[in-house]
Order: sequence, then C-alpha cells, then structure tokens
Amino acid sequence: MGKRTGRKVCLSLSALLAFNSLAYVANADTNNGSTVPKTHYLAANSDNVRWGNIGKGDPVLTVNSGDIVTVEAITHHSGDDYERMIKGDAGVEDIFHWEGDDKHEADRGPGVHIMTGPIAVEGAEPGDVLEVKILDMKLRPNGNEEYAGKTYGVNAAANWGYLYGEMVEEPKTREVVTIYEMDSDGVTDYATALYSYRWTPQTDPDGKVHPTIDYPGVIVDHDTIEKNFNVLEGVKVPVRLHFGTMAVAPKEADVVDSVPPSYYGGNIDDWRVTEGATMYYPVSVSGALLTIGDPHAGQGDSELNGTAIETSVTGDIQITLHKKANLDNKLSELNYPLLENENEWVVHGFSYANYLEELGENAQKDIYNNSSIDKAMKDAANKAKAFLMKGMELSEDEAYSLMSVSTDFGITQVVDGNWGVHAVIGKGQFGEAEQKTVNLRTSFEGFGAKVGWQTATQTISISYNGNTLSAVIGATTGTYNGATVKLTAPVQLKDGKAVVSDYFASFYQSVLSKTN
Amino acid sequence: MGKRTGRKVCLSLSALLAFNSLAYVANADTNNGSTVPKTHYLAANSDNVRWGNIGKGDPVLTVNSGDIVTVEAITHHSGDDYERMIKGDAGVEDIFHWEGDDKHEADRGPGVHIMTGPIAVEGAEPGDVLEVKILDMKLRPNGNEEYAGKTYGVNAAANWGYLYGEMVEEPKTREVVTIYEMDSDGVTDYATALYSYRWTPQTDPDGKVHPTIDYPGVIVDHDTIEKNFNVLEGVKVPVRLHFGTMAVAPKEADVVDSVPPSYYGGNIDDWRVTEGATMYYPVSVSGALLTIGDPHAGQGDSELNGTAIETSVTGDIQITLHKKANLDNKLSELNYPLLENENEWVVHGFSYANYLEELGENAQKDIYNNSSIDKAMKDAANKAKAFLMKGMELSEDEAYSLMSVSTDFGITQVVDGNWGVHAVIGKGQFGEAEQKTVNLRTSFEGFGAKVGWQTATQTISISYNGNTLSAVIGATTGTYNGATVKLTAPVQLKDGKAVVSDYFASFYQSVLSKTN
Repeated sequence: MGKRTGRKVCLSLSALLAFNSLAYVANADTNNGSTVPKTHYLAANSDNVRWGNIGKGDPVLTVNSGDIVTVEAITHHSGDDYERMIKGDAGVEDIFHWEGDDKHEADRGPGVHIMTGPIAVEGAEPGDVLEVKILDMKLRPNGNEEYAGKTYGVNAAANWGYLYGEMVEEPKTREVVTIYEMDSDGVTDYATALYSYRWTPQTDPDGKVHPTIDYPGVIVDHDTIEKNFNVLEGVKVPVRLHFGTMAVAPKEADVVDSVPPSYYGGNIDDWRVTEGATMYYPVSVSGALLTIGDPHAGQGDSELNGTAIETSVTGDIQITLHKKANLDNKLSELNYPLLENENEWVVHGFSYANYLEELGENAQKDIYNNSSIDKAMKDAANKAKAFLMKGMELSEDEAYSLMSVSTDFGITQVVDGNWGVHAVIGKGQFGEAEQKTVNLRTSFEGFGAKVGWQTATQTISISYNGNTLSAVIGATTGTYNGATVKLTAPVQLKDGKAVVSDYFASFYQSVLSKTN
Repeated sequence: MGKRTGRKVCLSLSALLAFNSLAYVANADTNNGSTVPKTHYLAANSDNVRWGNIGKGDPVLTVNSGDIVTVEAITHHSGDDYERMIKGDAGVEDIFHWEGDDKHEADRGPGVHIMTGPIAVEGAEPGDVLEVKILDMKLRPNGNEEYAGKTYGVNAAANWGYLYGEMVEEPKTREVVTIYEMDSDGVTDYATALYSYRWTPQTDPDGKVHPTIDYPGVIVDHDTIEKNFNVLEGVKVPVRLHFGTMAVAPKEADVVDSVPPSYYGGNIDDWRVTEGATMYYPVSVSGALLTIGDPHAGQGDSELNGTAIETSVTGDIQITLHKKANLDNKLSELNYPLLENENEWVVHGFSYANYLEELGENAQKDIYNNSSIDKAMKDAANKAKAFLMKGMELSEDEAYSLMSVSTDFGITQVVDGNWGVHAVIGKGQFGEAEQKTVNLRTSFEGFGAKVGWQTATQTISISYNGNTLSAVIGATTGTYNGATVKLTAPVQLKDGKAVVSDYFASFYQSVLSKTN
C-alpha cells in the first residue's frame, strides 16, 4: 500500500479528534479578568508529521497568535534501536510503520527529519515575524514495558560527518551508532552510552539494501550487528535538550529538504534552541507554516560526527505573531532565525544566507558541495553587525568594536549542507536597555496572577490559570506545579522588593498561561 | 641613535639589578616544613622586553621549576593615547621612548607585541612540557596624575581586521581607535568606551608617515585626530582579563613574528588564558624561553576587528617543568598549546599546526595569505580527537561520538595570520576521573598550610607562607589577603567535610606559595 492510502485512513480517524484544533476557537477563557490563550495538543502520528519536508502544505493545526501548543516531536533515528525507541509507543509505531507494501509516511524526503506540523498561524503574512517561545521540553519515555520509564537516544557517526573517511583507524569510512540512555541524579540530567555498533548493510521492506545510513526510518536488524557494551564507561554527557529543527515554510520552493538550515530557520542545530529560549523567524508564506522536529538530548557546537544525541521530546511552545507594521528595530528587517534568551541574543549565519535563492534551480543538491565555515563566518559577522546597528541603534564603528571585544563566534554545525556560525551577544553589557528590571509583584499582578510571599523561607509564589510557580530569592531552580524547574534567572531582591528581568516576566507569564 | 646603543646602556644598568634573578638560587625557604618556591619580579622596561619577536634569545630571568614570577606586561597600543597609557609610567615611557634618534626598543618586529622575557627554565629541554599557571592578573593603573588610579585600554578596528574594506559606510577602509576605561561596580569589572577616533596618517620621529596602523609604538598626535566622545553610551563591556600572547620559543627560526600563533603558543588570543587557568606548552629549545605579553581586558571569540581591549596587566604565574620521561597521557605527545581550568580542557587548533615548518622558507610572510577557519577547524577536530583518545583513553569511536554530543568548537581568532579554532571539552562529564574531589583540610595541611574553620559563618581559612585565603562554603567569591577574589569553584560540603577539586587544591596551593 502506498503512502496516500495509508495517510487517508489515518486522516479519517484523526479528523474527528483534530476538529476542535483545526476550527477557529476564540480566546475567550479568562482568568482574573485577563484573557487566557488557548492551549492545543499536537500528537506525533502519521497524520501530524511529514518526513523530510519543511515546505508548504496543508496545516494539521491552525492557531491564533498567543496560543500555546504542546508538540510531540519524534527522532528519525528511532529505527536504530526498535525495541527501545519504537516498540509499544503507538505514535512512533504509526510513523515508522513499514511492513511489506504497507508503509506509513511513504514520502520520506528530500530531508530526513520527522517534522510535526505544519502549524498555520491565523493572519500570518509574508513580512511578519513569528515568535516561538519554548516554555517546556520533556524527554519522551519509551513505550516498551521491558524498559519502562526510560528514554533513549542515538548518536550516529554518519557518512555526512565531518571526519568521515579521515579516521585514523580502519575502516576509515565506518559509520558507528551509539545508543545513549538518559538519566538524572536529581540535580543534573545526563546521558550515558549504553552500547554501540558499526552500521552494516540493512535491507528495507522493499528489498533495497542500504550499505550506509542513506534513507530515514530503516529499522536496523539487530541480528546483523555486533553490539559493544564497553563504551564510554563512567562518562556522563550533560543533557542539553533542544529542537534541532524548527522552521517556517520558505517561499522559494514547495518541497524543501529539512536538512540545510536557512533564513527560515530549519535544521539550525544550535543547542541554545531550548527551554527558556525564544526564536524569531521571518514569515514568507501565508500562515507561516511552522514545523518542529529533530529533538536532541545533547550536542556540542559543530555537531561534528553528523548527529547529536537524537531522541524524542514533547515541548510546550507559545506562538506569537508580530505584524510587519508593528515590528521593532530588532525585528523589522529580520532575514534569519534570531534567538533570544534571558542573557543573550544569538545571530545565526550560514554559508548561504538564502541558499534556495542564491544557488538557483539545483540549490537543494548543490548546497551539499559548496559550504564552508569561512562563508558562514562572513555571513554571521555581517548579520551581527547589522543587528547591533539596527537593533541596538549603534553606529557601524560602535558595532564593529563591540563585535571584537565582547561577541563570541562559535561553529554551530558543519554537517547540515548549509554550515552555520553563530554570534552570541550578551545582553548584560547593555544594562537596563536589554535587561530591564521589573517589580515582580506589579508585573505579575498586572498580568492577572496572584502573587504570594513567605518571609520565613524567602519564597515567592505566582499562581495563574491553575498553575503555580514558586521560587526562593536568589535560587537558580524553582518549582512549577510541584516539580523542580531550572529558572531562566534567579529572582532578586532590590530595595526589599522582588525583581526580575522583563524577559523573565514575559517568559513565565507565558508558562503560567498553559491550560492543563 | 640606533637600537643597539640604546639597549646597551639600559642593559648595563639592569645587569646589576637582574643579577640575583639570573643566578641559580636554591629553593631553600621553608614553611611548616615544606619547600616554598622562589618568587621573582620581572618589571617591564626596555631591558626586559622584546618588541615583536618571540624567538630564541638571551633570557632576562632564569627560574627553577615551581618558581613564581610576577610579570609586568605592557600593551603595544599604548601610543594610541600617550597621556592616558604612557605618560608618568617609567617602565612604559622607557619602552616607548623614541625622540629624534633616541629610540629605545629600536628593533620592533617582525611582529607587534611587547613581550616580557624571555624567561629561561633551568633544565628545560626539547620534548619536555612547560606548565604555566596564571595565579593572578591585575590591571596596571596609568602613571599620569591627571588620571590617577584609572586604567585604559585600546580597541583598534585595524587594517588586518576581518571586515576591513567591507564596511557598509564610507570610507570602507577606515581604521577606528576606541579608547576604553576600565571600572568596577564592586561585583563586576567592566569597560566603558571613552572616545574614538579615525586613524589619520601619523609621522614618526624618523619622519616616516604611517597612513595606516603599520608599525608598533607610533605615538598618535592627538592634534591630528578628531575625538568622538559620543560612543557606546551606557554600554558596559564585561572585563575578561587575559594574556593574548604567551609563548615558548620555537626551534624552527631564530627571529619569530609574535603575531601568528602556532604549536609553541604565542598569540593564541583565547580569553580563557586568564587567572585560574593553566597552560601547557611543548618545549622545543633548551631553557624553554617563555615570553609574555599582549594583555587584554576584553575580547570575544574571533577578535573580529583585529584587536581586543588592549591594555597593560601585571600577572603572577607559576612555571613548572614536566620532564619528557615523566609525562602523563595528556602531555606525552603534546604538540600544541593546551589549556586547563577548573571545568574544562581547551584544545587549540590553527590553520597550520606548525606553520614555520609547513610553509617553508617564507613561512612568516606566507602565513598571512593562506589561513582559513576551515583549515583551523580540521586541525582542532583532529587534535581534540587525539586528546580524547590518548589523554582520556577512549577508543576512536568513543572520542568521535563525544566530540559531537558535548564538545563545543569556537572561533578563537580570524586576525592573527594563523587563524584559530578551539575545542572546549568539559571535565564534569568524566566525573572523578577529571574532577577528583579531595578533602580540603587533608590536602592543604598535607601541603603545609594551616586550615581554620568558623562554624558560625561557615568559613574556611587557609594560611601559608604569609598568605591567607578565606571562603564561605558554597560561595563563588572568597578573600585573598583581605581582597575579594573570584574562586575557580566554590568550596563544597560533603559528609560534613569541606571538599574541593584536585585542580582547586593545586591551584590555590600555588597561589598561597607566592612570597610577597
């Protein structure tokens, strides 16, 4: 059975379930007099994802500006360990299903990532900017009772890795898959390597042999591999949960490879795209058409061997539309994915700022042969300068000086076709201009929340829409609905009053707005 | 008067002063039964520095392994504001002195940095490794009563800057000097821009006109420039004090340009080469011949416009020789400058790992036309892999995976001829193997120190050789001889006992060993 039929069946099943989400629902709920945004749930299944394509297409969900969406995102590497990453999880089984002629997600390509979406945003038009706040990210426990409660991830040293063919040991062109298991000591989340194996030729249900990792979703036959359980003993890799790929649809093509990042975001593979961060994307098609995927549990700047710790994650995001007419100086000429968090602005440069346009008709092939870090650095430097000039209202000379004395340029990735360099600009150096301090009580009560204070324990608690955030003054962690969370910044005391940054206030007002 | 005569006069004056340092002095002082290393003072003046050359040469000081040296390091950009950075400071005036034919440091080149040294290390031979711990760094207040107590620095957007000729505003090829003033709010040290000016052709005392910044130590005539005091208003650049250039002499040439970094260290321009860090250099000539210079008050990864905030700094360093026969796995094949601090190992890659050897006879010219970030990344990736395999005893597959999931690659600099990429490897992921916890009292008492404990304030105090370090459990700052200092890590309580990392213990044992 081909893809179309498979999808049709599932769609008819899910149409009923999705009806409420797809329909326009006014944001009519109120809390303490203020309007509470609608919260949607977008499950990962073969109806709600596309495999490898971040181009235009029918939305699986339409939201209003300000709405919150809980998004399930699934790693495309799950097939590297079927037992630990697919079996028993209905959504993942549905997406990966491929038995004989019955292949769900038959249309895999031109890229590799399982992308949840697209999500259409009411009223979004080219020239607008889409803001995506990442309110929460949680690892997705596997569905197999045998490994109950555990979460696994995959790092594949793949044929597109930076040192492929240049290893010192033979065979130099080997591909090696390492399965990681995520754990926590209560304070720090970490990943440990469980076992590794060398990729061996794998035969898919169509009878095609895959001598290398050249097609997504092939289930590795564990009878054909040799597992090495003696791997990275005692090493605990720090967990940095993030979305490797989050994109609005580009205007230049209909079907777009999910692998090379570009002006519309996509596979940026910056581990800073994590809980507590906000992304800004230039909208270039009606509805924006946001897709989310490629979740990672850990990655270094460069993603050297081709992949991160690829795992599945469920995230809460808030989507806010900024209309072209009302854009501030930082956003009014935005032509790349910009990141903001509590302490930084991060500008993303690429070998080609808009490779689809720059490389012409064969762009989606040619991009894989033309990238360099040097090109990406030049792009990042020019973008950072433009950001400082326009966004921070500096002269060109001021901007250039600041880029040299305090801006850190790092190598985002060298494995995604369109290579990346990012520039990290600290907000602290601009003082109140970029880290405005606000009175916590005034800000949150103005928002409609209830603010409580316990002198004995120096604890502030903020309640809104059935949610409660508590934090001790000066602490880096707090509790949210009873669970420990890392705060974007500690709450401070200033002249006897609790104060936070305006970013903190805005971020946690969004977090508290989620309807459970 | 040419250089030789000028130096000769000064040398005859300083020979007497330097005699004790040059002579072999046994480390005979003792404290609580342990041996206290000798502390030397190396002032910056025209006897003790070379300008632009980090090659072989007569040492100005000879030390034994374990000795501590207080080193004055002077910025070569002081001439950009004579009043604020030269006038009234005898050492700096001496170095920059150039009136008519009377030119101290007449031999400026082939590089630009004022390098204090060389310091010879007794017994150092090719194949050994020289360890340099940076125990302390302090800004050098200017010597002009009019600006008493203040310290200034220079950022020059220079002709070797990354975007020179590619600015959007005209003239695209302008060079702009920004004078910064360093300050502190008691918690954070920062720099603010005071004024800037565009470089105008400057005539040196020999009558030669310098249309661009093409020769070090030219005193800018402030009657020829236009000062813009309206620059970076309200911006407080975080201070990151570090030595831009620290080198052992290479074997390949006698006179060596101080600008391009290489296997022997030199102008790495990594802001992590700061107080609390330890550098390891492969020795390639007898005596090692360490030189120190190019102090910076602030720099971002990339040093984009050609310079940092260039200022003058006095540092305490401890020099330790590791003989070839006794090198551990991390050092036994070291062929590049390696950095260690409390939490990280930092591997430094360059476009050319050893450009003097690789580029042949004209290497010192050709290096300026052949660098790229792509080449530096390849070098950094291969070095990081080798470090993880040899130093951490990982297989090649384990190392490659870890490089992808947790190692951050950044762009060190793109302006020093031989461009740099660094790899930051976290120690924490290796647990006790790299961050061994030691009992503070046992460790420091074993070293010969007195350890005190105040239960009421949870304060530990460690005294040795007339110095005292105090720290409250869990605090990020402590006091050292009464002054507030940032600790490399907080002291922790474990099972009711104060514990620190072995790096902390080793570092502060060195700090306490300085004889004041």
